[in-house]
Amino acid sequence: MNQDISQIKVGIVGGGQLGKMMVLEGKKMGIYFVVLDPNADCPAASIVDELIVGDFYDPLKIKKLAEKCDVITYEFEHINAEVLIDLQKSGHKIYPSPHTLMKIQDKAYQKQFLQSNDIPVANFEVIDSLDDLNRAVETFGVPLLLKSCRGGYDGKGNYLIKSHDEIEEAYKALGEGVWKLMVEEFVPFTKEISVVVGRGISGDLEVFPLCENLHENNILKMTIFPARVNDIVATKAKELAFKTMEVLEGVGVFCIEMFVTEEEDVLVNEIAPRTHNSGHYTIEGCSISQFGQHIRSILELPLGKVQLNRAGVMINILGEANYRGKAKLVGAKEALALPQVFLHYYGKITTSPYRKVGHVTILGDTIDEAFERAEIVKNTIKVIGEEVI
Amino acid sequence: MNQDISQIKVGIVGGGQLGKMMVLEGKKMGIYFVVLDPNADCPAASIVDELIVGDFYDPLKIKKLAEKCDVITYEFEHINAEVLIDLQKSGHKIYPSPHTLMKIQDKAYQKQFLQSNDIPVANFEVIDSLDDLNRAVETFGVPLLLKSCRGGYDGKGNYLIKSHDEIEEAYKALGEGVWKLMVEEFVPFTKEISVVVGRGISGDLEVFPLCENLHENNILKMTIFPARVNDIVATKAKELAFKTMEVLEGVGVFCIEMFVTEEEDVLVNEIAPRTHNSGHYTIEGCSISQFGQHIRSILELPLGKVQLNRAGVMINILGEANYRGKAKLVGAKEALALPQVFLHYYGKITTSPYRKVGHVTILGDTIDEAFERAEIVKNTIKVIGEEVI
Repeated sequence: MNQDISQIKVGIVGGGQLGKMMVLEGKKMGIYFVVLDPNADCPAASIVDELIVGDFYDPLKIKKLAEKCDVITYEFEHINAEVLIDLQKSGHKIYPSPHTLMKIQDKAYQKQFLQSNDIPVANFEVIDSLDDLNRAVETFGVPLLLKSCRGGYDGKGNYLIKSHDEIEEAYKALGEGVWKLMVEEFVPFTKEISVVVGRGISGDLEVFPLCENLHENNILKMTIFPARVNDIVATKAKELAFKTMEVLEGVGVFCIEMFVTEEEDVLVNEIAPRTHNSGHYTIEGCSISQFGQHIRSILELPLGKVQLNRAGVMINILGEANYRGKAKLVGAKEALALPQVFLHYYGKITTSPYRKVGHVTILGDTIDEAFERAEIVKNTIKVIGEEVI
Repeated sequence: MNQDISQIKVGIVGGGQLGKMMVLEGKKMGIYFVVLDPNADCPAASIVDELIVGDFYDPLKIKKLAEKCDVITYEFEHINAEVLIDLQKSGHKIYPSPHTLMKIQDKAYQKQFLQSNDIPVANFEVIDSLDDLNRAVETFGVPLLLKSCRGGYDGKGNYLIKSHDEIEEAYKALGEGVWKLMVEEFVPFTKEISVVVGRGISGDLEVFPLCENLHENNILKMTIFPARVNDIVATKAKELAFKTMEVLEGVGVFCIEMFVTEEEDVLVNEIAPRTHNSGHYTIEGCSISQFGQHIRSILELPLGKVQLNRAGVMINILGEANYRGKAKLVGAKEALALPQVFLHYYGKITTSPYRKVGHVTILGDTIDEAFERAEIVKNTIKVIGEEVI
């Protein structure tokens, strides 16, 4: 890689909010960015040097991106890993490695891989038929989580079977076997936490403060930082995160979601081989953000030391339920009148129910102070659309 | 102004590093930016929505900028204020107001204005001829600072007369009366400090932690934050800054440079009606940066509360003395191996001796820790050019 880092051209597969925030960090150091996204109006579009409009699975477009860049990364794991492997073979730098990506894309394979490396995960089983599913419900009982092994995010591709009556419905909802499925034992967790962690090419590791996630309708609703867990749990979680990064040989920033149980056990839930919604708090909350750290790792630079600036919460701004069409942001001025409120608005042209269109980070001297402010912000900032549905 | 702040279009006169860093902040909130700059390759070029290539004094280009935008601001004070006044009269929003700008552009007028508002400044006198200058040297003694009243920055347009022999030379160097000149009594200061301060449209004021400046060859070499001054001096400086913003009716972020004397008097040296090099530390050093604050003020939003994250120093990266041509950054990887080192590289295509091409902010648990790191960074990061001179 060029020793003059300002001459390095970075290609990103995906120009959504994660890509956009990565570009904003890299531009501080004068980095050149080319982004591949199907949408010419994607959030990153207005700040990239070049935009290639194309599908994440289109081999020709991915190759075009590679030819223009010194290193490729991605903001989204559901992309064409096979093409990336070919490109890597022919000498292109890709971080995280497509071999790492392949281990993660299929959730059943991901869990098998973790298990074989003694990383604790919930019990699971691959489901090939309705009969398999029936048997699994007998074995594991309910509630039981049915998941498609590929392509899911924000709860899409997940079905929580709460009674035996729902088995067929769940099987139908997830494609009746068209896509590979798995079941996962329901973990009665007391907390869901995220460990955002960076690993450099020389194997150096830097973990961000653990954070705690609250979901609503399967979408991340709020992240609380730092997570309110004791030292035993925190140490277990960090050790698991480091071990996971090592066995995956991950280079870049990853998000490792974990469950904490009543017995203070920590299990790995899911891995995102990329920056993550639950790490957005790092922009204002930490000395270096997840995006800045990711840029450092893919440029083969030493990682930045992470320090927490202040506690707080991050809430997502989702499109209001009963609107679509051209997005309109309301209440921003009122929300920003509160102390330590930071608005991120992704610039998506249209809204739809529950679409992620922005987030707000709220700092406080204590988490409770931030909570109080968050409650007001949540009721103040709204994104509506031109069309009422 | 549109209540949906993401729909507001901001015009910036100037696309240098200050404009670039302003855009990077505004893009977080999805703001649209149009920039006017004479250079199509200016630092902000790659991240703006529209670039108008044209001179800062070209009335047609400035009008074009105004027509495209809801509000205009600037990164540089030596621009065509008359055109801005006309535009303001015809209903365009311009922050800071061009009337404020007019009070600042002419340094003699600036000082008269401050003096008439009981804001302490060094003694000064307008110089209309060589005779005037000779008389002034008699009155004030040497050293005496001869300044052109307009257009100077980074010490350009300043001449420090150290003995009677230098009077004619100084007069010649500053244009022999072609430009309006002034002399300023030399203040035997113990410290030069900057007060970066924001004022909103409703008159709300937010001051950043005072910082301390060290110059070399008239160019800012290092900023130390927070300034090592006692409470008496800090209070005086903040009160002066607030009063200055009020009498100027300034809207936006300003930098007020001050001298601190041995007697703990504080005098206003110069005012920049814009974000400033000595405020770059706020990006990593504070909860909100000077650029984020400026964006808030010109969007007519409430100002953000300022909190210091950590102490440290900011050093400028200047083009090495004996190079010009295509710029090449060396040593970045090595410098970034130190903890809490943040590189900003503006993306200027070419370098020349002492050209400001970037800066590095270095945080520490103490200023001394940051100093030690800065010493290493200074000797590591260099910008050279293709051509040795």
